[in-house]
Amino acid sequence: MYRSHSCGELRASHINTEVTLSGWVQKSRDKGFMIWVDLRDRYGITQLIFDEERTPKTMMEQAQKLGREFVIQVKGTVIERESKNKNIPTGEVEVLVKELTILNNAKLPPFTIEDDTDGGEELRMKYRYLDIRRNPVKNNLIFRSKVTQEVRNFLSGEGFIEVETPYLIKSTPEGARDFVVPSRMNEGEFYALPQSPQTFKQLLMVGGMDKYFQIVKCFRDEDLRADRQPEFTQIDCEMAFVEQEDILNVFENLTRHLLKEVNGVEIEKFPRMLYDDAMRLYGNDKPDIRFGMQFGELNEVAQHKDFKVFNDAELVVGIAVPGGNEYTRKEIDKLIDWVKRPQIGALGMVYVKCNDDGTYKSSVDKFYDQDDLAKWAEKTGAKAGDLIAILSGDTNKVRAQLSALRMELAERLGLRNPKVFAPLWVIDFPLLELDEETGHYHAMHHPFTSPKPGQIELLDSKPGEVKANAYDLVLNGNEIGGGSIRIHDKATQAIMLKHLGFSDEEAKAQFGFLMDAFEYGAPPHGGLAFGLDRLVSILGGQETIRDFIAFPKNNSGRDVMIDAPAKLDNEQLKELSLKLDLQES
Amino acid sequence: MYRSHSCGELRASHINTEVTLSGWVQKSRDKGFMIWVDLRDRYGITQLIFDEERTPKTMMEQAQKLGREFVIQVKGTVIERESKNKNIPTGEVEVLVKELTILNNAKLPPFTIEDDTDGGEELRMKYRYLDIRRNPVKNNLIFRSKVTQEVRNFLSGEGFIEVETPYLIKSTPEGARDFVVPSRMNEGEFYALPQSPQTFKQLLMVGGMDKYFQIVKCFRDEDLRADRQPEFTQIDCEMAFVEQEDILNVFENLTRHLLKEVNGVEIEKFPRMLYDDAMRLYGNDKPDIRFGMQFGELNEVAQHKDFKVFNDAELVVGIAVPGGNEYTRKEIDKLIDWVKRPQIGALGMVYVKCNDDGTYKSSVDKFYDQDDLAKWAEKTGAKAGDLIAILSGDTNKVRAQLSALRMELAERLGLRNPKVFAPLWVIDFPLLELDEETGHYHAMHHPFTSPKPGQIELLDSKPGEVKANAYDLVLNGNEIGGGSIRIHDKATQAIMLKHLGFSDEEAKAQFGFLMDAFEYGAPPHGGLAFGLDRLVSILGGQETIRDFIAFPKNNSGRDVMIDAPAKLDNEQLKELSLKLDLQES
Repeated sequence: MYRSHSCGELRASHINTEVTLSGWVQKSRDKGFMIWVDLRDRYGITQLIFDEERTPKTMMEQAQKLGREFVIQVKGTVIERESKNKNIPTGEVEVLVKELTILNNAKLPPFTIEDDTDGGEELRMKYRYLDIRRNPVKNNLIFRSKVTQEVRNFLSGEGFIEVETPYLIKSTPEGARDFVVPSRMNEGEFYALPQSPQTFKQLLMVGGMDKYFQIVKCFRDEDLRADRQPEFTQIDCEMAFVEQEDILNVFENLTRHLLKEVNGVEIEKFPRMLYDDAMRLYGNDKPDIRFGMQFGELNEVAQHKDFKVFNDAELVVGIAVPGGNEYTRKEIDKLIDWVKRPQIGALGMVYVKCNDDGTYKSSVDKFYDQDDLAKWAEKTGAKAGDLIAILSGDTNKVRAQLSALRMELAERLGLRNPKVFAPLWVIDFPLLELDEETGHYHAMHHPFTSPKPGQIELLDSKPGEVKANAYDLVLNGNEIGGGSIRIHDKATQAIMLKHLGFSDEEAKAQFGFLMDAFEYGAPPHGGLAFGLDRLVSILGGQETIRDFIAFPKNNSGRDVMIDAPAKLDNEQLKELSLKLDLQES
Repeated sequence: MYRSHSCGELRASHINTEVTLSGWVQKSRDKGFMIWVDLRDRYGITQLIFDEERTPKTMMEQAQKLGREFVIQVKGTVIERESKNKNIPTGEVEVLVKELTILNNAKLPPFTIEDDTDGGEELRMKYRYLDIRRNPVKNNLIFRSKVTQEVRNFLSGEGFIEVETPYLIKSTPEGARDFVVPSRMNEGEFYALPQSPQTFKQLLMVGGMDKYFQIVKCFRDEDLRADRQPEFTQIDCEMAFVEQEDILNVFENLTRHLLKEVNGVEIEKFPRMLYDDAMRLYGNDKPDIRFGMQFGELNEVAQHKDFKVFNDAELVVGIAVPGGNEYTRKEIDKLIDWVKRPQIGALGMVYVKCNDDGTYKSSVDKFYDQDDLAKWAEKTGAKAGDLIAILSGDTNKVRAQLSALRMELAERLGLRNPKVFAPLWVIDFPLLELDEETGHYHAMHHPFTSPKPGQIELLDSKPGEVKANAYDLVLNGNEIGGGSIRIHDKATQAIMLKHLGFSDEEAKAQFGFLMDAFEYGAPPHGGLAFGLDRLVSILGGQETIRDFIAFPKNNSGRDVMIDAPAKLDNEQLKELSLKLDLQES
């Protein structure tokens, strides 16, 4: 038996107990006549003591040689500690060692195994197994496990059945590229890895499973942006005989349950916002409502003067920055530079300082008088002491730009407190989205989302105006979940696919099995999927999903620890009936 | 709101309640003046009633047209049923329909949606979403969900952390072929799908996670035998600072928990059997011990007479077949034909009838007298009225043959009762296994399994005799789990890989990251993995794992419902830098 207790377990009540502990050497202090060793395992740290008077000489020598991260087993007696450490739960005791066994040596780790490490990102990834020893990473993984267990407990309690859907499926165009898997037994053919279990969960509804969920890996072969992973985890859910309201209720309750169980936060009814309002008030379909700074649209009060920039703009829109009146000219110039960065892309920024005496000072005083500016202040909700930041231009672009500025300023103002949780339903999403490059419409959510009742007739005349039974759950400015009521009849699904540019043959080849299924008694159904990686990181009060994934990949989709992907030998390629066809370099 | 109650919910206490139900038309009986419809959902069946007196004419007409599997919604009043049905929980009531809405039509299903269906295997797979509506399949999936939830509850309670390991990893040789995934971003390189999360769970132990589990999909590109799936699910577990005994205890408790919670069966301490004994007594490393029929080795008492077949054999071994004395000559001939089938491969079978009067009648009376045969009866435990069936030949082959015969006879004798559960630990597996074709040894469990203490020295001289810290959990003649104490130091791992035929370069390329990890303080560790598909099917009292998988693949690895795998277009291949290299046909 390697241990009688964990390293986080011993208390004053254990004094005089004989114990066996195993763990890692966190650090040791050697005063010659006395050696203290901090022994660490997943559960905590216990101090070991060796001393000249009570410890045999050979063991003293052995103890002196213990390096950081050595794996040892000790037997000894729990004794009262002379200088107690109130910072750790085991701080009242130490173990006087009587037997010491080195279970494994350790080379000096490439970075320190401490809460604050000196290891850079790439090094920590290469030695992820050492990184996981560090409390912040270890605790994130334990936290993730707790969240998923709570999700399962809640959904099982609500009568949901967890059903595993297959990973080796068929290529389906859900917006992103599929990862594919060559089939050896079916020569020249490929499986695809699922981007989501969408069609299968719908078939489970056709199959009468009624309430389905699954915590499941999904795969997208996209060019990776920061914090995107080629494989990611969804909490995938579907229900039959439901309307949007039923779904919002169940998953609002799930989210409320999580916030309570894992964060100790109780939240009443989640607010709901129309997609159109979210775009108008926050320039964004996932507004962070932990703070205000709502957009004020200024066209009415800022156009038709002599300021050509505003007059030519589709949208003139501003936000009030609390306390922004304090900004120096230099600070404001920096802010203007910030919005003009290529990532943001604004051409400029107009500002108004709201003085404490109720007067205004703007960068466009040449064109606007105090009455004009007062109206701007009213529209943006600016108060004395604030700064109004105003952008103008094409509606979609300027909303995105001002939204980015709003988030940046909130960050600087400390308004994005990770311990505050502000969930929000955004509902009534458009069914279709215009791809500005191709001029084609594609499904905003996915091709299986149903239009609002009675709106399908608009698909021909005003495709951009058709609203969908689609909703997102937003938490602190992040989309943590999204879903829709699905189409459940073949005719509507056919119309939808046609509008998305599928020929009849393509529709049949790719979704024939689903459309067939709709002919055998498909119930009304809908669902939702949470992005688990993101959900867990936000509940954990952090921004980076990578810190909540045990073995993440880097931005090139590589696992630098195991060095994957890797080359195959020709034998293996041949078995798969494949040849490399490399680009000439 | 589609429903106020489910179709399994209404009881006599609901009489006079106004309810809304939704579901599928299971069947209808039309007597002209009265129509009864069985409405079905996941939760049960409720009878609806329409009658001339109380139902408007148009609704009667509508009700008459309801076909099987139509999806409908009804509003109505719960009334007492005239002829009660004691077989279903809702049998005391029916719903007098006041409003009927057809939510979706249904074509006639290709097979009947009944407990006993007329659909063949292939048809049921093609329309799996209809098959899932049938109680046997639906209940299996619900049962599976319950088992996994119980596994999670138990392991979480024991302090195990569920950690998700990656699916896009690196090709590792664990006995079977990997499925691979071409990487678009890393041209000419491939990920592999995991055959198991083996190395990752070991790295989690190096990372101090202490107790890990995961219910996880694994992938093997093997030629499929019946009841093998290219993707399958494991309950994967690993623990640090443990010896074999610790692991057996934890997972024996888990299995006991499952048997109790999902089967209501309480089982005391599981028996343990040495691998060598299992092979000797049952000819098999996964003996079904629900019944006896242990092997009796007869070399000592059957050789050195004039019967050349036995004299030349490496092993002469028999079993007593209870009541087999009754077999007619014709039945015995059939049995002999059975063991001579190519799948079994015996050259013949010697038999002894144990007469009720204590005499014996054998097929080799020419060579053996009554005293000889009495000794055979003693060795095999045969009693008056039994038949002794004896095979002879090469030890390994003859054990496999007799094991197959034992199972077949037990099946015929009704000794393999699926409601009886007989778990068994088989321990002390050999470390290595001789591949008879190549003459090379390979790892019986996997290359990370540790040899028994002190036996590593035998690797050179007697590789076949080295025992491993490896164990299997057997349930009713099926291996449901297996595991080992792992190697946790680089030197031993290097020796092991060398003996398995890896060059230093190969070892480094494939397992360098693991061997490196062992140098940074790897704790002693070990684990176990359960095959979930198999486990669930046995707990569910059935043999076929396919019936416990929502969307299984057929024997060619195809999903016939979605028709996967499928061809890729050239565009997609090009993006992956691949060309097909098809065999000429």
